[in-house]
Amino acid sequence: MRSLTILLLASTALATSAAADDLRDYATDMFQPLPSTIPAVADNPVTDEKIELGKMLFFDPRVSLSGVFSCYSCHNLTTGGDDNLETSVGHGWQKGPRNAPTVLNAVLNEAQFWDGRAEDLKAQAKGPVQAGVEMANTPENVEVMLNSMPQYVSLFETAFPGEDAPTNFDNMAKAIEAFEATLLTPAPFDSWLNGDDTALTAKAREGLGLFLDLGCVSCHSGVNVGGHGYYPFGLIEKPGADVLPEGDKGRFAVTETVDDEYVFRAAPLRNVSLTAPYFHSGKVWDLKVAVQIMAESQLGEELSDEDATSIVAFLDSLTGEMPEITLPVLPAETADTPRPKQDALP
Amino acid sequence: MRSLTILLLASTALATSAAADDLRDYATDMFQPLPSTIPAVADNPVTDEKIELGKMLFFDPRVSLSGVFSCYSCHNLTTGGDDNLETSVGHGWQKGPRNAPTVLNAVLNEAQFWDGRAEDLKAQAKGPVQAGVEMANTPENVEVMLNSMPQYVSLFETAFPGEDAPTNFDNMAKAIEAFEATLLTPAPFDSWLNGDDTALTAKAREGLGLFLDLGCVSCHSGVNVGGHGYYPFGLIEKPGADVLPEGDKGRFAVTETVDDEYVFRAAPLRNVSLTAPYFHSGKVWDLKVAVQIMAESQLGEELSDEDATSIVAFLDSLTGEMPEITLPVLPAETADTPRPKQDALP
Repeated sequence: MRSLTILLLASTALATSAAADDLRDYATDMFQPLPSTIPAVADNPVTDEKIELGKMLFFDPRVSLSGVFSCYSCHNLTTGGDDNLETSVGHGWQKGPRNAPTVLNAVLNEAQFWDGRAEDLKAQAKGPVQAGVEMANTPENVEVMLNSMPQYVSLFETAFPGEDAPTNFDNMAKAIEAFEATLLTPAPFDSWLNGDDTALTAKAREGLGLFLDLGCVSCHSGVNVGGHGYYPFGLIEKPGADVLPEGDKGRFAVTETVDDEYVFRAAPLRNVSLTAPYFHSGKVWDLKVAVQIMAESQLGEELSDEDATSIVAFLDSLTGEMPEITLPVLPAETADTPRPKQDALP
Repeated sequence: MRSLTILLLASTALATSAAADDLRDYATDMFQPLPSTIPAVADNPVTDEKIELGKMLFFDPRVSLSGVFSCYSCHNLTTGGDDNLETSVGHGWQKGPRNAPTVLNAVLNEAQFWDGRAEDLKAQAKGPVQAGVEMANTPENVEVMLNSMPQYVSLFETAFPGEDAPTNFDNMAKAIEAFEATLLTPAPFDSWLNGDDTALTAKAREGLGLFLDLGCVSCHSGVNVGGHGYYPFGLIEKPGADVLPEGDKGRFAVTETVDDEYVFRAAPLRNVSLTAPYFHSGKVWDLKVAVQIMAESQLGEELSDEDATSIVAFLDSLTGEMPEITLPVLPAETADTPRPKQDALP
């Protein structure tokens, strides 16, 4: 691998299209461009009706016990699909244990959450709603809320035809998954993978070469440049406890296997330039520093400032175009809608 | 006045167009339909560039010290332009002193806040940003934040051409005002005022008749059906302390005039069906109950259930169509952007 990239780097001055094709061939083995259509999801055919309902639910703060938080609060679609906080702030101003990952392109991850404990987005969507430090709600209370508004009931009936009592927690999660499946952000890197030589700057191509050559790609590959496998954080050298807090053993909490101590899902890197701060701990704000920490802890490489800058240029090319999202108009609450409770726990 | 309405009510069975015209003539004296163009605001020409920048700022949570709250948090454009909470939740999970009013059509109010202490929306916009119980930020910190992102600096330069150092707190407020000036929601009542007889149901027309006849219109008139004058809450009979807490003396805090004790700006009633809970205290969730409390405390009238229902039908006709709002894409923070602080006070 290394020799190929060194060859490519050596030939950048010539910038021959043959060299560009070699880099693309290798990159195409490792990555895939975003699909041009909404991906299918398991056990949940994505329909326009589900997407529209899911968008409403995604934006509805009444999904939380307090009436303060919606999915959008921590997966803010104006700021890269996350909240740009170290860890999210939830019910009662509690702080979550880990940095909120972006919802953008998340449908293409193999599993959800930093430890992959949710197999898909419909499983994921149910987590924060019930987490005491996040929305602090219960499925029962959410179902009372949804059924209290005739417009929601009608939209659930349309989105889940033929079902008995479709206005339920599971279908809420399915509708949200359908909406989230639309949140794909095609990026310059996709254009380049698809054959547009001009889509990446020379610096970004150099960074891509390094990304491939150094071995970053071993964990961060595939359509989401990550998001598909589990790896120990600190494979070669554990970073300090400020970045890798001892108390959070990652996937170990899911599998209870010693091998999974400090194992996390490799972060999907699309839109990474928009989603500081970094790592599950959210402790690092500078992307170049994050790249250097990764190189050292995972690959045992001390990256020069110049090389790290090149890799950041490549990562910048993963910043995609947001789909146009028009705000939904939500139904008004009724006499039967549970009132927001800021002081209570479920 | 009363005789006219009684005449109209008596003639509803006939539903003659003459009677409809009489009711409309009277209503047109008291109310105005929404303008068809964006209203001019004082000392701040509304331009497309300001509107677009203002929309970004309205949605940007980095305007708050914690990075958690944006203008949108409490003036949620999916739920009637307010937050549907008794009083808003702000920095450190503190609760604000009064119910958040809707931002929809607010540009047409004579002044802003329940006590009218801000003369316009650009003055209003600066309040919550600095309030310790809301965004808890400082103008200085906001200016550092805005100037840290080249894209914002460029957008301010375009929106405020020819100004020296335009990326400042005052211009932030002006841009937000420009965006908010676009948030007009034409409603069936406007169609009816403009001559469409079919736009109001018979029940809504009956409610309008009562609204005029009973004297609700004495305070709730004009283009926003309120929002333009100050009146004592409990003119005839003070409601209980649950609805009118003794500690909040309203406009007295602004003018320090005894006559202004428990005086508040008459609530603008557009979209009132979407903006429960009601009153500055946010203690009443049922619009019909709110109408009955108003009738008793302000007019000394005990409204029958039927009459209150008719008035609610009229108020429902004030629910307007939201402008289509596409989410902005905000610039990514840089090394110079102040980091969110959830624990600090300014």
